[in-house]
Amino acid sequence: MRVLVLGGDGYCGWPTALHLSAAGHELAIADNLVRRRIDEELGTSSLTPIRSADQRIDAWNERAGVPIDLFVGDVLDYDFLSGIMGEFLPSAVVHFAEQRSAPYSMLDREHAVYTQHNNVIGTLNVLYAIQEHAPSAHLVKLGTMGEYGTPNIDIEEGFIEVEHKGRRDRLPFPKQPGSFYHLTKVHDSHNIAFACKVWGLRATDLNQGVVYGMVTPETLIDERLHNRFDYDGVFGTALNRFCVQAAAGHPITVYGRGGQTRGFLDIRDTVRCVELAIMNPPAEGEYRVFNQFTEQFSVGELAEMVVTAAARLGVQGRVEHLPNPRVEAEEHYYNAVHTRLLDLGLEPHLLSQSLIDSLLNVAIQYRDRIDQRVILPRGDWRGSRQHGRERLTTTFS
Amino acid sequence: MRVLVLGGDGYCGWPTALHLSAAGHELAIADNLVRRRIDEELGTSSLTPIRSADQRIDAWNERAGVPIDLFVGDVLDYDFLSGIMGEFLPSAVVHFAEQRSAPYSMLDREHAVYTQHNNVIGTLNVLYAIQEHAPSAHLVKLGTMGEYGTPNIDIEEGFIEVEHKGRRDRLPFPKQPGSFYHLTKVHDSHNIAFACKVWGLRATDLNQGVVYGMVTPETLIDERLHNRFDYDGVFGTALNRFCVQAAAGHPITVYGRGGQTRGFLDIRDTVRCVELAIMNPPAEGEYRVFNQFTEQFSVGELAEMVVTAAARLGVQGRVEHLPNPRVEAEEHYYNAVHTRLLDLGLEPHLLSQSLIDSLLNVAIQYRDRIDQRVILPRGDWRGSRQHGRERLTTTFS
Repeated sequence: MRVLVLGGDGYCGWPTALHLSAAGHELAIADNLVRRRIDEELGTSSLTPIRSADQRIDAWNERAGVPIDLFVGDVLDYDFLSGIMGEFLPSAVVHFAEQRSAPYSMLDREHAVYTQHNNVIGTLNVLYAIQEHAPSAHLVKLGTMGEYGTPNIDIEEGFIEVEHKGRRDRLPFPKQPGSFYHLTKVHDSHNIAFACKVWGLRATDLNQGVVYGMVTPETLIDERLHNRFDYDGVFGTALNRFCVQAAAGHPITVYGRGGQTRGFLDIRDTVRCVELAIMNPPAEGEYRVFNQFTEQFSVGELAEMVVTAAARLGVQGRVEHLPNPRVEAEEHYYNAVHTRLLDLGLEPHLLSQSLIDSLLNVAIQYRDRIDQRVILPRGDWRGSRQHGRERLTTTFS
Repeated sequence: MRVLVLGGDGYCGWPTALHLSAAGHELAIADNLVRRRIDEELGTSSLTPIRSADQRIDAWNERAGVPIDLFVGDVLDYDFLSGIMGEFLPSAVVHFAEQRSAPYSMLDREHAVYTQHNNVIGTLNVLYAIQEHAPSAHLVKLGTMGEYGTPNIDIEEGFIEVEHKGRRDRLPFPKQPGSFYHLTKVHDSHNIAFACKVWGLRATDLNQGVVYGMVTPETLIDERLHNRFDYDGVFGTALNRFCVQAAAGHPITVYGRGGQTRGFLDIRDTVRCVELAIMNPPAEGEYRVFNQFTEQFSVGELAEMVVTAAARLGVQGRVEHLPNPRVEAEEHYYNAVHTRLLDLGLEPHLLSQSLIDSLLNVAIQYRDRIDQRVILPRGDWRGSRQHGRERLTTTFS
């Protein structure tokens, strides 16, 4: 297949592109490289040294059977996007090209507007470019389990059968997202479902859980292929961040009581789920949703698992409960269905002590690259009157 | 009360501002006057001659007890919006400042992007400006009944009690909007609900039906206060457009079979509903939804009513079924709850023959201003490859 990966330079996009390339697909990556610029804005960087986009592509192409094409540009630039869509004529478009941090979207108005504009208008452009140049291409869009929030009923995969006043219908599952970032994914989902209906596009919305881990078989082939690993308070996700905190001798920071329960998955399953979606496309006009995670944990459980694993490596970890900067339930019911990817053949990499050990060892290996100043959350989602740079430097320390 | 009306120069905003001013509130209007520029873009204009924004404000202020302030500027310009919010310090903000035509949003990519950017980012700015300057102000936001689509169950007012696998929750009513414009209202609803949750804002989302009519008591006081009346295929709504078609000797154009059923209301009820919402604000942190319409009709029923009324005035009307440019069910279940505004005291102006007669008489009075070339729908929502001006001039004629 010809697969265009939008956002193929990022934490999930890069290993996905390599995995699909290794599996024999013809790959092109489009990326505006903004994630690297955001590192500079926030004064942080990947725990692991990563090469420039050109260098990592060159490294892969030295070894790959079929080289990957890299197009540097922005999905907000329709001429750019339309140009590569018309030139490459993909059979599948994997869309990671969004601002993906909830805390970043909550820093202030400018960051909320940036996130919603980038994600919503970017995805609109993707839909129009597919319709214009490759209307039978399959759009594989990264959504998030965070679209659903934490309802007091079981979460289904995108749709729910509702019986109401003696009548029945299958309706979109009600959404209760918890940040301006998560809201963009809900907006996208509605826009994509509509495009499938009116234009007959085909799309898979992967409502992904929190991703942990760093390596896939392909990123290990050459150190120039290494994936990024975020541990800061803005882009670092729970388990990854906890491991770095333990390795750095920093308290493991749980926001609030820690009963917040979410779906999680190993990054090796992320790349496999995208492949499974691509290999099993929906029908023309079909908009489908897969809940993409393998296990549920509470944040507090993960923190304790890291403490235990660290102790085995001779590192003493300590959990600290911070005032929760987010507005979210800290004790709640949570049970989300996630069978569709399993039905397609996903064999999950369940969270193991050995995986946590390996993350801790990576964190220990790169301990001298850890900047403790960027670990804590920035800002309070309840809102302050601060803006821009001033707000960006606010922490709980 | 101090009421800021965003979009107060438009079809609904202008009579609402006058009504609230007449009721004794201190009013300010902010408007970028873009609706007048869109008339130029589309080569159309209001059936009724309307004065410039300055002239109509001056006319009102000659007669009103308390003058209305007019601020010309754009809600996308945060400095402008923040400035008037901080200066005027409203107790209520009525937000009409959105691109409100579904067909306009479906003309091509540029118009879809314009609509989503204008509406979603504009509303984000409104939320931030309220949070920054007037956090206890009540946001009254114009949504649309079109957010719900046409589910096979009764439509509730914003939320629905769901029982699922033995558990219960009250959840946002699932949304199935039918155009890129309608999608923006769904996006706004999610953004506003979130802002109420995290910042403690208070908001009323008025999910309005299709508005018909033109005059309110205040717009009749002076011809310089007259309201606009759209009859073209892009901005004209069903009943208003049908009356003009009959008066012009043009077939009354029903899209598809005409079984499309929607909620409708008289513009005199629009202004009253906004007033009722303002006088009965929600609690801090509360996001509530009122379904704002008074009666349900199918498009075919309305067309027949216009034929009957026209005949009584000696005008022979004829219904013509056009290929439906939209993608929508043409026969479907539709039953939407709309009790909350009635509970607050709304006394509906139900659709009467005399109202249709008066609209027909207006259309006959201004018959020489009707441009038949702009009556038919432009473009097919299923998508063509045409763009921009070329697409704008496409019709079914």
